[in-house]
Amino acid sequence: MSEVHTAQVLVEALPYIRRFAGRTVVVKYGGNALAGTSDHDALALFAEDIVLMHTVGIRPVVVHGGGPQINDMLAKLNITSTFSQGLRVTDAETMQVVQMVLNGQVNPQIVSAINTHGNVAVGVSGIDGRTLQVTARNKALGFVGDIDKVRPHVIQGLLDDGFVPVLSTIGVDKDGQSFNINADTAAGAVAEALGAEKIIYLTDIAGLRRDIDDASSLIQRTTVSELQELISTGVISGGMIPKVDSCIQAVRGGVKSAHILDGRIAHVLLLELFTDHGAGTMITGDVS
Amino acid sequence: MSEVHTAQVLVEALPYIRRFAGRTVVVKYGGNALAGTSDHDALALFAEDIVLMHTVGIRPVVVHGGGPQINDMLAKLNITSTFSQGLRVTDAETMQVVQMVLNGQVNPQIVSAINTHGNVAVGVSGIDGRTLQVTARNKALGFVGDIDKVRPHVIQGLLDDGFVPVLSTIGVDKDGQSFNINADTAAGAVAEALGAEKIIYLTDIAGLRRDIDDASSLIQRTTVSELQELISTGVISGGMIPKVDSCIQAVRGGVKSAHILDGRIAHVLLLELFTDHGAGTMITGDVS
Amino acid sequence: MSEVHTAQVLVEALPYIRRFAGRTVVVKYGGNALAGTSDHDALALFAEDIVLMHTVGIRPVVVHGGGPQINDMLAKLNITSTFSQGLRVTDAETMQVVQMVLNGQVNPQIVSAINTHGNVAVGVSGIDGRTLQVTARNKALGFVGDIDKVRPHVIQGLLDDGFVPVLSTIGVDKDGQSFNINADTAAGAVAEALGAEKIIYLTDIAGLRRDIDDASSLIQRTTVSELQELISTGVISGGMIPKVDSCIQAVRGGVKSAHILDGRIAHVLLLELFTDHGAGTMITGDVS
Amino acid sequence: MSEVHTAQVLVEALPYIRRFAGRTVVVKYGGNALAGTSDHDALALFAEDIVLMHTVGIRPVVVHGGGPQINDMLAKLNITSTFSQGLRVTDAETMQVVQMVLNGQVNPQIVSAINTHGNVAVGVSGIDGRTLQVTARNKALGFVGDIDKVRPHVIQGLLDDGFVPVLSTIGVDKDGQSFNINADTAAGAVAEALGAEKIIYLTDIAGLRRDIDDASSLIQRTTVSELQELISTGVISGGMIPKVDSCIQAVRGGVKSAHILDGRIAHVLLLELFTDHGAGTMITGDVS
Amino acid sequence: MSEVHTAQVLVEALPYIRRFAGRTVVVKYGGNALAGTSDHDALALFAEDIVLMHTVGIRPVVVHGGGPQINDMLAKLNITSTFSQGLRVTDAETMQVVQMVLNGQVNPQIVSAINTHGNVAVGVSGIDGRTLQVTARNKALGFVGDIDKVRPHVIQGLLDDGFVPVLSTIGVDKDGQSFNINADTAAGAVAEALGAEKIIYLTDIAGLRRDIDDASSLIQRTTVSELQELISTGVISGGMIPKVDSCIQAVRGGVKSAHILDGRIAHVLLLELFTDHGAGTMITGDVS
Amino acid sequence: MSEVHTAQVLVEALPYIRRFAGRTVVVKYGGNALAGTSDHDALALFAEDIVLMHTVGIRPVVVHGGGPQINDMLAKLNITSTFSQGLRVTDAETMQVVQMVLNGQVNPQIVSAINTHGNVAVGVSGIDGRTLQVTARNKALGFVGDIDKVRPHVIQGLLDDGFVPVLSTIGVDKDGQSFNINADTAAGAVAEALGAEKIIYLTDIAGLRRDIDDASSLIQRTTVSELQELISTGVISGGMIPKVDSCIQAVRGGVKSAHILDGRIAHVLLLELFTDHGAGTMITGDVS
Repeated sequence: MSEVHTAQVLVEALPYIRRFAGRTVVVKYGGNALAGTSDHDALALFAEDIVLMHTVGIRPVVVHGGGPQINDMLAKLNITSTFSQGLRVTDAETMQVVQMVLNGQVNPQIVSAINTHGNVAVGVSGIDGRTLQVTARNKALGFVGDIDKVRPHVIQGLLDDGFVPVLSTIGVDKDGQSFNINADTAAGAVAEALGAEKIIYLTDIAGLRRDIDDASSLIQRTTVSELQELISTGVISGGMIPKVDSCIQAVRGGVKSAHILDGRIAHVLLLELFTDHGAGTMITGDVS
Repeated sequence: MSEVHTAQVLVEALPYIRRFAGRTVVVKYGGNALAGTSDHDALALFAEDIVLMHTVGIRPVVVHGGGPQINDMLAKLNITSTFSQGLRVTDAETMQVVQMVLNGQVNPQIVSAINTHGNVAVGVSGIDGRTLQVTARNKALGFVGDIDKVRPHVIQGLLDDGFVPVLSTIGVDKDGQSFNINADTAAGAVAEALGAEKIIYLTDIAGLRRDIDDASSLIQRTTVSELQELISTGVISGGMIPKVDSCIQAVRGGVKSAHILDGRIAHVLLLELFTDHGAGTMITGDVS
Repeated sequence: MSEVHTAQVLVEALPYIRRFAGRTVVVKYGGNALAGTSDHDALALFAEDIVLMHTVGIRPVVVHGGGPQINDMLAKLNITSTFSQGLRVTDAETMQVVQMVLNGQVNPQIVSAINTHGNVAVGVSGIDGRTLQVTARNKALGFVGDIDKVRPHVIQGLLDDGFVPVLSTIGVDKDGQSFNINADTAAGAVAEALGAEKIIYLTDIAGLRRDIDDASSLIQRTTVSELQELISTGVISGGMIPKVDSCIQAVRGGVKSAHILDGRIAHVLLLELFTDHGAGTMITGDVS
Repeated sequence: MSEVHTAQVLVEALPYIRRFAGRTVVVKYGGNALAGTSDHDALALFAEDIVLMHTVGIRPVVVHGGGPQINDMLAKLNITSTFSQGLRVTDAETMQVVQMVLNGQVNPQIVSAINTHGNVAVGVSGIDGRTLQVTARNKALGFVGDIDKVRPHVIQGLLDDGFVPVLSTIGVDKDGQSFNINADTAAGAVAEALGAEKIIYLTDIAGLRRDIDDASSLIQRTTVSELQELISTGVISGGMIPKVDSCIQAVRGGVKSAHILDGRIAHVLLLELFTDHGAGTMITGDVS
Repeated sequence: MSEVHTAQVLVEALPYIRRFAGRTVVVKYGGNALAGTSDHDALALFAEDIVLMHTVGIRPVVVHGGGPQINDMLAKLNITSTFSQGLRVTDAETMQVVQMVLNGQVNPQIVSAINTHGNVAVGVSGIDGRTLQVTARNKALGFVGDIDKVRPHVIQGLLDDGFVPVLSTIGVDKDGQSFNINADTAAGAVAEALGAEKIIYLTDIAGLRRDIDDASSLIQRTTVSELQELISTGVISGGMIPKVDSCIQAVRGGVKSAHILDGRIAHVLLLELFTDHGAGTMITGDVS
Repeated sequence: MSEVHTAQVLVEALPYIRRFAGRTVVVKYGGNALAGTSDHDALALFAEDIVLMHTVGIRPVVVHGGGPQINDMLAKLNITSTFSQGLRVTDAETMQVVQMVLNGQVNPQIVSAINTHGNVAVGVSGIDGRTLQVTARNKALGFVGDIDKVRPHVIQGLLDDGFVPVLSTIGVDKDGQSFNINADTAAGAVAEALGAEKIIYLTDIAGLRRDIDDASSLIQRTTVSELQELISTGVISGGMIPKVDSCIQAVRGGVKSAHILDGRIAHVLLLELFTDHGAGTMITGDVS
């Protein structure tokens, strides 16, 4: 009985393994996932999935932010934030903390977790090779930047050498000044610049819903135009908007599909990649 | 529940997929398997497994005989055999039938079955590029040959070009005369000459047993030296001897492992290759 | 005196040797040539020419049928043919015989003859890698097929690996069913698919004639449009039509020249390839 | 007059440029150099030299520590150090600060400075690809590690892709735990692992002296054995010992020469590399 | 003081070294330069510059004539010239002398001078591989030819193999007859055919002047259209016209810049190539 | 009848064509051959053979001297030679003539003759890339040199680029001074340095004889040790000694065979290379 199921899983999985071999898959891993008590196990499972993807020839790129960890460190240093137009202002002192925490705390933690399965992970920040080139959004917000251009050479070089890049989402402007940027947006832009096969957002929800109050209305597969309607009719709202916008942008920019998965499910990346059923919500262009 | 099992199968399988990518696996497929009524389904499942192996980068080589089909054709042509020392004599007329049936009937049937899944199979006989060079065993037996040398260039060239060679076990001597040879022995010799990772014999038994009358005594894993003891104590006997001898010879010649599997189990090749438990009996060298 | 002639032959031959190095030449070898008493010598001379062509870097491809041998085997098996619209019907039983004889008898005989001069020949049938993909001509004729598409990958791969492919003209449809096809037509289609330099038909006539009754009217060189006129005026008729049509089709499809040679002349292939005078009839496009 | 000098400089420099093209040069850049007021200019000049070296085909690798910056951050966070055997204990909290400051503050500052001249610098820490694998020195000192092994693959890959790696000297043990390590020692070990042509220490002294009190006794060129004598006789002592030991170790490990230069001299790297006179102190093996 | 100047020279030179690495630079070296007493030193300095250019990856091609040396040999052989339309007639006897002197005297002298710095120079004449294909200018002038076509294959092959070609400007027509040609024109045509970065004429003047009588009116940089005006207004005249015309032609044909330098200045090639100030007169297209 | 002979020539020649493809054959062409009245035809036939050899993939290298042409020019210039120990002294003036005639007259004549069949010939002298490095034999003889070392890089590079090098046998010492050398010896040394398949001397005799007075005693094939006996017994003497010594030296140095052919026979090179009978005298090592 179990042998039959095992054989079915394999028969289903092998063609996907071939299809995705050599393809780039960008995975956005949230800072939240690292912050809680039980998260170390979640990080370990995530790290194992990334290494298994790498094992069968997929080229994974991990992109991360680190909001909770930044807040902790600001608190420790007694730095209080001011706000402008409802958004937190990133002054020089805050920016230094953001950069230290993302590059010097969160990034090495993810890299080390992956490397316990085989020394393939390499941390990169948007400063390296000026990978994420930004301009300031507006003066009032301080060092908050919007991406002008992704230079994919460092990441591409690491992928070609067989490494798994782990990208800390710090931007840099033409003068070498560092900037705070939105990690979801950065992940989408990186996927587009790399010509990725997939961009996958690991979240703490099961996926998108057609009816926000009905768990049974999970959207398994949708298109860019349907998504835009869901936004305009208010079905999708709030914190999901930047993620969903990044999905739309990435798919329009040539990424084959975008995914919103529940990072709390063990091995959800493998389930999405290697089964017919997949996991969470898959977003493709209108024609495909 | 099912998702957990699926994830487990994948986590287990992916490292094997990596390990075997680019490796050559020789599969001996018996003429019996093609002869019965329900065999067309068995052939279809076998063909699917071969293509799936190929899909994930394994280099499969199929080797076949065709005893039952030869007997049928000899009967149709009213050719009766004589015997010498208890073995059937292969005279010129019989040899012509053997060659016609193996190269012109069994081989194309297997090739066509595989090609319904994607035109990768190419039939080869031992005559092509003098792949299987033989000498006559003795005059009394007529055109019965023993392999002197396997020239792997044709098979290797086809593998390098991405094809699945399907080898008909006809031998040829220095003068270009065709010979009848033992297919099990040929399969082992080919595996050795190719530096194969595995030689797999698909049979109609579950595997080798430690006690021939006790189904529960199936040997999952054994070594060359244990096998020799089982032969010397008579546990292994009769028709299994040539197969087991070929396994021993191949492993001694550098093939990493030899396998005796039950070809009646659906997708038994995938189960053997991609699960920790494997299937049937696995034979390795004494040290590993 | 002889030295002067030898030098002249060499001075004439060397530029042709250079011109044809690396070029593909398809040679249609008839089943008739194998059927007679003295043919073993003819086969040996033919095999020597093929190996000498290969020696100086030409890429020969041999294509064969086997009508007489098929008839012999049908007779032995007491299979009588029915006819439809004046053409022999190929039922399943007949088809099996056709395939057995071409793949299992004629093909290995040619391969072995070539390999006595150096193990370079490899038998291929239209089934391998679905090289010759066909559709049924019409229901009444049974398994008689017309070529839809030549997939040249197997033959090309063997050529690139330094082998001489010997093609048995069995076709296969999308479902893997084998079909009987015209060998002359197949040879032309293969030459076209390979982008061959030449297609050469070895026959038992000296070449085409302008006046069918006048041996002195041999056509040494002609063009596609002149040939069409000769057909429309009835000068060329009967059994020569399929061969000549295949020549026209191949030249139109990009083959530089088609040749009808007398296979009974010793080393006629070398004389055609490496002398200014050539041999038999040469057909080119209208402009060249 | 000036034209003559210019020509002399070029005639002298061009052969060095050829000799060092394609060679790896490791430059240890001290944290002190970044700490002072006027250092931004020093950093800018240093960054220009690194880019000019890169321009003519040298493969520079920058290695840095960051003692003063770590002390500042520990002070801001009110973390006080305990001591064991006269050495500062690195507890988990301290280690986190060390890592944040080196990876998240000092490293990006150097990377950004170089990138203002052309986006070639890429920050790497010893954690990435487990580049610097360490074991704890002893329990009492906490997370203070000694290098077991340098895995040069990440740095080598970046060099091969045309980037300038900037290495933050954090070590990591087999379990993924980060460690504090001596930056001078790390620089030497990296040079050895890369088979570097040169290891250059930028310091705030003019070079080594034969008589510590006599500025005119500057050693322009010395050997490993002479250096050992200078240590044993106490001429070299104190804070210079780890640097000098790293030089000796690197030269013994195959690095062609080690250099101690005065980082306060503008373009001292170019003067050392491309003039006959060189700069500071050069240390070679005894035979060369 | 000197260190500061040295550093300035290096900072200025390194980017040029990178820019010109791998680029072809054609240098026209005059026969006059070899004829005088003190010329051996000039030749030695010139040879050193060529080798230094080669050292840093530039691909220099030297083109030479040899008027004075030809006149000497004609005198020794008592051959007197006749004239037609004011130009010297090159009869068969004179042509033989021209060829002997250029290929057998001047060319080996330059090759040997370069090879004392490292065996990289290889003499080539326009006859080799029919590099300079010409047609006769008119019957009256005898063997005076104009270039129809430069076949760059021999020179390109030598450059690709790391050699420095030294081209003797003998032309050859379709029948293999040798011709006397203008060396300045040949140098320009070769630069154009090679897609050279620069064509440099070494002369015995400081450069072009805006006012022929005013040494201070040296033109450091000019364009093709300004030059044409200077010719049409008579500022440039006489013997400079062929050189200047060759410059114009070469720049129009794709050479980035043409230069007229004073070959009497030591290391003038290095000063031109590797300093911002350059030397002599530089001619570029109108847009750049 | 003629067709049969033609086929025989081809059957015999094709395996040689294959065997020699890609192999280097050095041909020593004498200055005498160019000096006489009817020589232009001889040169044309020789040039055709060289191009035909090149056509079928052989890599010919032509080596020449030019004694008669040098004597003519010395006479024209009224330069009389002095003698020391019975040998002509090469003073500076004579050396200049030798170099001018070989590089500037004989070499271009051969190059142009070959190039009328397809621009493949490139003249090279021993000065180029210091191909033939020599030292003076003794002071009394002036600029007469013996070869120390052949640097094959220029010739090898030209062969790899598909050219036919034509080598003028001028030597050069470490200081760049040109020297007169024996052309037969130079040809043998070049063959050895190139690892040539054959060294062929074109002479005006039919080959070596066992009895100098008996034309029927021509030696078709001999070995190094037999040759040494023939020299020691005085059968071979006089002007043939340097040629025969060069043959012995070359064969000992790894050249497969040396040949002494009668250059007056039309296409003698083709007869030697591509027939079983060969031409002239063939010298091999003792074992082969």
